[in-house]
Amino acid sequence: MLYLNGSIMPLADGRVSVEDRGFQFGDGVYEVLKIDNGRLLWLEDHLERLEWSTGQVLLSGALDGHPLAEILPRLVSMSGLRQGTAYVQVTRGAAPREFALPSGVEPTVLAYVRSHEFPSDDEVRAGIAVHAVEDLRWARCDIKSTNLLPAVLAKHAAGEAGAREALYVSADGVVREGGSSNAFVVLDGTLRTHPANNRILNGITRCHVLDLARELGLPVLEEAVHASDLPRASEIFIASTIRDVMPVVRVGGLDTGMLTPGGGVPGEMTMALAEAMRSLIARCVGVPAPPRRFPDASKGNSTP
Amino acid sequence: MLYLNGSIMPLADGRVSVEDRGFQFGDGVYEVLKIDNGRLLWLEDHLERLEWSTGQVLLSGALDGHPLAEILPRLVSMSGLRQGTAYVQVTRGAAPREFALPSGVEPTVLAYVRSHEFPSDDEVRAGIAVHAVEDLRWARCDIKSTNLLPAVLAKHAAGEAGAREALYVSADGVVREGGSSNAFVVLDGTLRTHPANNRILNGITRCHVLDLARELGLPVLEEAVHASDLPRASEIFIASTIRDVMPVVRVGGLDTGMLTPGGGVPGEMTMALAEAMRSLIARCVGVPAPPRRFPDASKGNSTP
Repeated sequence: MLYLNGSIMPLADGRVSVEDRGFQFGDGVYEVLKIDNGRLLWLEDHLERLEWSTGQVLLSGALDGHPLAEILPRLVSMSGLRQGTAYVQVTRGAAPREFALPSGVEPTVLAYVRSHEFPSDDEVRAGIAVHAVEDLRWARCDIKSTNLLPAVLAKHAAGEAGAREALYVSADGVVREGGSSNAFVVLDGTLRTHPANNRILNGITRCHVLDLARELGLPVLEEAVHASDLPRASEIFIASTIRDVMPVVRVGGLDTGMLTPGGGVPGEMTMALAEAMRSLIARCVGVPAPPRRFPDASKGNSTP
Repeated sequence: MLYLNGSIMPLADGRVSVEDRGFQFGDGVYEVLKIDNGRLLWLEDHLERLEWSTGQVLLSGALDGHPLAEILPRLVSMSGLRQGTAYVQVTRGAAPREFALPSGVEPTVLAYVRSHEFPSDDEVRAGIAVHAVEDLRWARCDIKSTNLLPAVLAKHAAGEAGAREALYVSADGVVREGGSSNAFVVLDGTLRTHPANNRILNGITRCHVLDLARELGLPVLEEAVHASDLPRASEIFIASTIRDVMPVVRVGGLDTGMLTPGGGVPGEMTMALAEAMRSLIARCVGVPAPPRRFPDASKGNSTP
């Protein structure tokens, strides 16, 4: 079921005007939330960021009259979903095509939920390959806008190269983030990730990873890693709403050839954070005392 | 009337799925054509560029079965329009939201025409103000994609500053193009414009301006101008499908303060090109021997 501008309808009936500015200009912002145990994870964080994004694209107030904090849980409960994602999008609405912001136009607000299979424990233990691509995106990646063509193309290139995620590297070699995830690198024993500036989307999962790392007493630095340092990285992982903490065991697309951080096996910090994230999420969605998922995290590394 | 995936319908009935990738990812490309004297100007050029754009975003073949070279003239003739614009958009179609390219999905192809009032002779003689903004766009501006949020924001900022168009200047000072137009600058007696690379959209009007300039024997250089050279520019104009050749008489938003190229009066080369463009377009759309519009172009400059 879909919420669209105040009405609830089957997703298949959800249509917008061909003159919707979301369709003609990518003039909108969005959020993707995780549904786990039938609950929306970090709903307030996502709504806060959505509100912020609307402000950045001059859409402040677009959500007035759309109580998403009630609508989204209602959609989840109507769906009966236990595991899945919720998608929310806000656009500047339909108006005759002109770049100038239209006046008196109602924004388009929609939300729906879908089932989604999250990575299994085995998939997490196996890790994924990522593929480095040049970051061609605009300079406001901090806004969660629907101008996602660069991500579509980057992730496709990664897929063609046999990888599960793209890794954006700037023309001058700065490791920025994944195609739809944040990237973390353990370098010289310190967990590093790109600072939350205009060059990355400050993921909500990213923030929780940083909190957990600090709670675990891991040395953390919000400072970008250079691609030329990746061969020295002992661990790499990505973090996102969809994949939580996902180890990276291969990195292609670099001048330095294929890398296999940690000898191609998820590292200690990564698995400790994956486990901590799992516990945190379980607490947040009301699963009491979840069983440990990765009991051998700190002993799992084999020699390369 | 709207052409949408093989059907003709009123524009107001034109709807696409909320899961259309054009709506959720800006995963599409487009064209805007000028209708003058009831004819589509440079139809083949636009369709050729559209075909090229589809290839660049991995949508080759999306236009198969959509004979736009017949559909667009039919829309114009149905509308009875003499002056206006035609809009064409192609997206990757509707599919459950995943970044990965969907398989077996029909692209969305649509086209429609609208009336549009082009700048009057007086407006051309008066020229416009432009406002420099930092070019935050992605590094594939040569693709005419619907990822247009940066342009929406840039043109809005220009409008707020009292200008009619944005002028993109890179972080290191390279003058690139207008918000939805190409920029031309006369510097040291030579007509300069940014080369047609990944940093600008190679406008069809831009190409015709260059041809006309060469025919008129004007010195032409496809080489970018630096913002710090703009105070020395004797003439500036923009060129686009909607505005043909439009003189720029004020440039704001620069460190160097407000500029008034040519003392705030359209320059000789600009008006010669505006006149030549007018004649060329008249010929192309079948208006015989159009009257000269700007007879005093070469004598019109007053002192600043």
